[in-house]
Amino acid sequence: MQSGFHLIKTGDSARAGELITPHGTVPTPVFLPVGSQGTVKTLTPEEVKEIGYGMVLANTYHLYLRPGIELVAKLGGLHKFMAWDGAILTDSGGYQVFSLSPLCQVGEEGVKFRSHIDGSEHFLTPELTIEHQEKLGADIIMVLDVCPAYDDSFEKVQRATELTHRWAERCRKAHKSKNQALFAIVQGGVSTELRQRSVACLTAMDFDGYAIGGLSIGEPKQVTFEIAAQTAARLPADKPRYLMGVGAPEDIVEGVVRGIDIFDSALPTRVARNGALFTWEGRRNILNAAYRRMDKPIVADCDCYTCRTFSAAYLHHLFKGEELLAYRLATIHNLHFIADLMAKVRNAIIDDTLDGFREEFWSRYQPTDEKTRVSQKYKWLKAKRGELDSGSVST
Amino acid sequence: MQSGFHLIKTGDSARAGELITPHGTVPTPVFLPVGSQGTVKTLTPEEVKEIGYGMVLANTYHLYLRPGIELVAKLGGLHKFMAWDGAILTDSGGYQVFSLSPLCQVGEEGVKFRSHIDGSEHFLTPELTIEHQEKLGADIIMVLDVCPAYDDSFEKVQRATELTHRWAERCRKAHKSKNQALFAIVQGGVSTELRQRSVACLTAMDFDGYAIGGLSIGEPKQVTFEIAAQTAARLPADKPRYLMGVGAPEDIVEGVVRGIDIFDSALPTRVARNGALFTWEGRRNILNAAYRRMDKPIVADCDCYTCRTFSAAYLHHLFKGEELLAYRLATIHNLHFIADLMAKVRNAIIDDTLDGFREEFWSRYQPTDEKTRVSQKYKWLKAKRGELDSGSVST
Repeated sequence: MQSGFHLIKTGDSARAGELITPHGTVPTPVFLPVGSQGTVKTLTPEEVKEIGYGMVLANTYHLYLRPGIELVAKLGGLHKFMAWDGAILTDSGGYQVFSLSPLCQVGEEGVKFRSHIDGSEHFLTPELTIEHQEKLGADIIMVLDVCPAYDDSFEKVQRATELTHRWAERCRKAHKSKNQALFAIVQGGVSTELRQRSVACLTAMDFDGYAIGGLSIGEPKQVTFEIAAQTAARLPADKPRYLMGVGAPEDIVEGVVRGIDIFDSALPTRVARNGALFTWEGRRNILNAAYRRMDKPIVADCDCYTCRTFSAAYLHHLFKGEELLAYRLATIHNLHFIADLMAKVRNAIIDDTLDGFREEFWSRYQPTDEKTRVSQKYKWLKAKRGELDSGSVST
Repeated sequence: MQSGFHLIKTGDSARAGELITPHGTVPTPVFLPVGSQGTVKTLTPEEVKEIGYGMVLANTYHLYLRPGIELVAKLGGLHKFMAWDGAILTDSGGYQVFSLSPLCQVGEEGVKFRSHIDGSEHFLTPELTIEHQEKLGADIIMVLDVCPAYDDSFEKVQRATELTHRWAERCRKAHKSKNQALFAIVQGGVSTELRQRSVACLTAMDFDGYAIGGLSIGEPKQVTFEIAAQTAARLPADKPRYLMGVGAPEDIVEGVVRGIDIFDSALPTRVARNGALFTWEGRRNILNAAYRRMDKPIVADCDCYTCRTFSAAYLHHLFKGEELLAYRLATIHNLHFIADLMAKVRNAIIDDTLDGFREEFWSRYQPTDEKTRVSQKYKWLKAKRGELDSGSVST
C-alpha cells in the first residue's frame, strides 16, 4: 500500500499528522469537501485545489447509479473522469442507501434498495462495494456498514453493529488493490458498551484507518461528542480517525479537540447555496436586508476570492437575482473558511495553543440552531424505521 | 469623449477596426457577452476576460429594478459593482420594457411599464434612461427607442420610428457625461424606405455610433440580413455599427460580411445552459445519448478550459445530474467558440480572405432550426400588440 499516516504532534487528545496517499500528502486534521456526483458543486477541480484542498470525498452510491461504475472505470477511473489529481475518498454507498433510497431491506448478505433517480431495484453487498470502489480508484475506500437510527433499541443497534462487523470482515477479504487504503466504520449508536465492542472487533481486523459512523443523526450535540471522544480514545493512535458527516465549523473544532483527524460534510457547500456564509461570529444569511447596501465583503479580513473581489451588496444582489455565480461565490467563501479553520487548528496543535484557540473561537462564535436541519435528516431515519424493522437483520 | 473608433481594414463591406473606450481598446468585429444583472451568467469577470472578452453588455432595465440605479452608483458604479475593469455597454432598457414587462404603454413623453419582478409601475423617458446609464457609468450607452412588431402596419412602424427619432434627439440633449459614447438606434421595421429615413434622421444628429434595432424578432433570416445590409451600407463609414440581439455563430458571420462591427446576444450563454454546445458543424446537444461514453472533448481541437480538461462524457454526466458546474463549463465553451470565431473573422478581413472563410464555414456548419426560439420571442411581441395599439403613440 502506497498510503500511510504519521503523527507530527499530539496534544491532550488532538493530533496533527499527515495522510500519505498515491495522490499526494494531506495534512491532518483535514476536512474533505463533498463531491457526490464527481464534482464539488459549482467548482472546478482547480478552484478546489486553489482554495486549499488536497482531498475530496465522492459518493459511490451516486456514481454507481449515474453514470455507472463500469463507465467511470472505462473512462480511466474517477480521478481522470473528474480531472482531479488530488486524493479521493469514496464512501461505500451504505449511508446513501439508508438515507436516499425509497426502499432499503437489510439482510445478512447485503442490502436491497431502489434508485432515488428512477426507482430501479439494486442489491449491494460488502464484496460489491469494494469492487465498485476499486474500479473507481479512490485513494481511501470505506467498508459497507449499517447505520441504525438514533432512538433504535439497544438490541436493534446491537444487531446492526454486529452485522457491520461481519460486513467489515467480508470487505477486508474482498479488498485486493494495494494502492487503496481501506477504512472500517465503528458503529454502536449512543451506547458506550456497543461502541467499545465495535472498536475492539474492528481494530482486531487491522484496517488502514477507522471512521466513526452513525453520529450526528439527530442525537444532541453533547452526546455526539461524548461518543466521538470515547471512541477516538480507544482507537489505535497510529491510524487515522474519521468522523463521518461532520463539518460545521464549531463541530470541527470540537472534533479536533477530541482526537479526530478527518471530517467530511456537505454542510459548508450546501448552506452556501442557501446563502448562509461562515464568519468568525457564526453563519450569516447574505439575503438579509442588512447586506443590501454593504460596500464591504462579508468577512472584512477574509482573503478568499469572493471577499477579495466583491462587496456583500453584490453577493446579496446575485442571490436576490438567483444568479448561478452567487452559489459559486458563496461556496468558495465557505470552503475557504473551513480550509482556513483547519490550518489554524493544525497550527494551534503544533504550537501547543489549541486550548487558547478553542477558547478564542468560542468567545466570538455563535453556533446556528441546527434544529431544522437535524430534524430533516432525522426524518428519513424515522421514515426508514418501518422498512428497517421489516428487513431481516439477523443476529 | 475618451471613446473613439477607427478602421484598420475594409473589405467589400466587412470592416476590421478598434473601439477605443475608457476601459480599454476592443478589436472589432466584436461580440458582447450579455450580463443582464451585472454578471455574465455562471462566470467570474476574470473568466470572461480570460476567454477573450474586453467588453460586456449589461441591462439598465434589470439593474434599475434590482438592485436599483442609485445603489449601484453609491457603490461606485457598475464597473466596481461587478468587479469588471473592461468596457461595458448598457442598453436603454427600452427593449426589455417591451419584451419583459407585463404592461407597457408608449406615449410621446415616455413609456409606462410594470416590473416583471413585483408588478410595480414605472415610467421611463429618454432623459431618465440617459440619467440611469450615466449613473451606471458604462463606456457606451444607448438611446431609448420603440421597437414595433415584425408584422405591424407600415403606418404603425412609421409612428414608432418617428417617435424613436424624437426620443433620440432628447437623449442626445440629456447626455452630459463626456466619458460615455452615445449610440442611436435605427428603426424602421422591414421597410427599406423607413430604414433609409431613420438613418438619414439619426446620422444628421451625429451620434458616436449606430445600432440597428428591431431585427431578429420573427422575420425570416433573409429579411434580417437584407435590411441589415441596406442599413449598414447607408451608415457613416467612420462610426461603429451595432446589430442588436444577434449572436448565433452563423448570424455573426453573415452580419460581419454585411459590415456590422458589434453584436450582442444572450443566445450563446442561454443555449449553453440548456446543453447546446457550439461546434464547427453546428450546435450539439450534450444530453444526447451519443455523448454518454465519449472519452474526447465535445470539440476535438478546441482549446477552451472545458475541452482541454473534461471529456464529453463528464459534461454529459454533469448535465444529467443537473450539476451547476455543467452550466459553467458549457458557457465557457460557447463563449470561447464565439471569441475564436470573432478572431478568425477579423483575421480573415485583415488578410482579405473573408469570402474563403465564409465559404469554408458554410461547407461544414449546419444551422439549428430556430423556429422554436423565434416563435417564442415573437410571441411576446404579438402579445404586446394589443397594448401597443391601445397606447398613444403620436405621429
